[in-house]
Amino acid sequence: MKKVAVILSGCGVFDGAEIHESVLTLLALEQHAIEYQCFAPNIEQLHVINHLTGEVSAQERRNVLVEAARIARGNIADLAQARADDFDAAFLPGGFGAAKNLSNFAIKGADCSVNSELKQFLSAMAKAQKPVGFICIAPAIIPLIYGKGSIATIGNDADTASAIQAMGAVHSNCPVDDIVIDSQNQVVSTPAYMLAGNISEAASGINKLVAQVISMIK
Amino acid sequence: MKKVAVILSGCGVFDGAEIHESVLTLLALEQHAIEYQCFAPNIEQLHVINHLTGEVSAQERRNVLVEAARIARGNIADLAQARADDFDAAFLPGGFGAAKNLSNFAIKGADCSVNSELKQFLSAMAKAQKPVGFICIAPAIIPLIYGKGSIATIGNDADTASAIQAMGAVHSNCPVDDIVIDSQNQVVSTPAYMLAGNISEAASGINKLVAQVISMIK
Repeated sequence: MKKVAVILSGCGVFDGAEIHESVLTLLALEQHAIEYQCFAPNIEQLHVINHLTGEVSAQERRNVLVEAARIARGNIADLAQARADDFDAAFLPGGFGAAKNLSNFAIKGADCSVNSELKQFLSAMAKAQKPVGFICIAPAIIPLIYGKGSIATIGNDADTASAIQAMGAVHSNCPVDDIVIDSQNQVVSTPAYMLAGNISEAASGINKLVAQVISMIK
Repeated sequence: MKKVAVILSGCGVFDGAEIHESVLTLLALEQHAIEYQCFAPNIEQLHVINHLTGEVSAQERRNVLVEAARIARGNIADLAQARADDFDAAFLPGGFGAAKNLSNFAIKGADCSVNSELKQFLSAMAKAQKPVGFICIAPAIIPLIYGKGSIATIGNDADTASAIQAMGAVHSNCPVDDIVIDSQNQVVSTPAYMLAGNISEAASGINKLVAQVISMIK
């Protein structure tokens, strides 16, 4: 049975992993009979956003791994323990957590850096030519791992696409129900909630991405 | 277009709404082209559970509506504003939040009571003979609304079933991929994560429940 890693970044679109995208990814994996292990970094979130008001909840502190455990029903491990040897592929759902906790793209834009544990894991996956799927805003991490000429989509937001191009990637516009494939780097990306208006639209691209990544497992 | 209310109880299986069940319910509604509005009570959670360790996080306080907004991506309203006249049906996903925040079944068992706003809304739905779907542990609320002889399932857990029978309902054992229908009360229930071992199993019953409840809309 194939086994993949799913990297979460908290629990909630505005400060963590986008919940719908995360659940849709896990569901699609089950439907392909693929075993998965969820991971998240054991670090403090950049901040906590009140998802009712959209405002920063200044007095609150939350841990990315502890909150991501809500999506995983407790079945999750510290990203520091993730070994590329143990997995055939990996997936990164989106949500601002990918740009606030897994990287600092939300703050630094093209000058961003990626969490060191994530960089280590994804670099090892890249070296082993194992496929990885990036969803929503998570593709902003692609140039930080795969370097110049890597191909990514975050949909069609011009400013975000420009920042990704400034980091050395080629941005390819993409509709919500489609995917962009970087065959050389074994990387697939899809816009999901960068464009989706509802869960079904997000699912259309995510289901395609999961199928594609699985088909690239050697 | 039909419109339904989805009542959430926080965000996370151990102290709020079960995330997978909530997303699966919303996705199934979209697939039936049913419009939905999420609601949650604007009250403090019974407690906060660290979903990584399973332990109570004694120093933390969270609000049910604010946390449920994570599942709804901010598109959620105070349950106090829910009017039965505005909706054709309603759904209650499970998670311990249904037994800790929407009711106190987790603490009081058969002696439990239900949140007064929820009772008001569901009683009005019952009076109007509008169908309601209860998922996972949420069916423990059924006898508190529909009274003696109402029919419910929480799967096959003997102790939980006994408590529900002690409250006046008839408990009917049910496998994870099936539903129990109380035609007289226009109530449908399914075990979901009371029995499910993964998201797909939960989806099998939830998809059937959503289809059944929609078919009962007059």
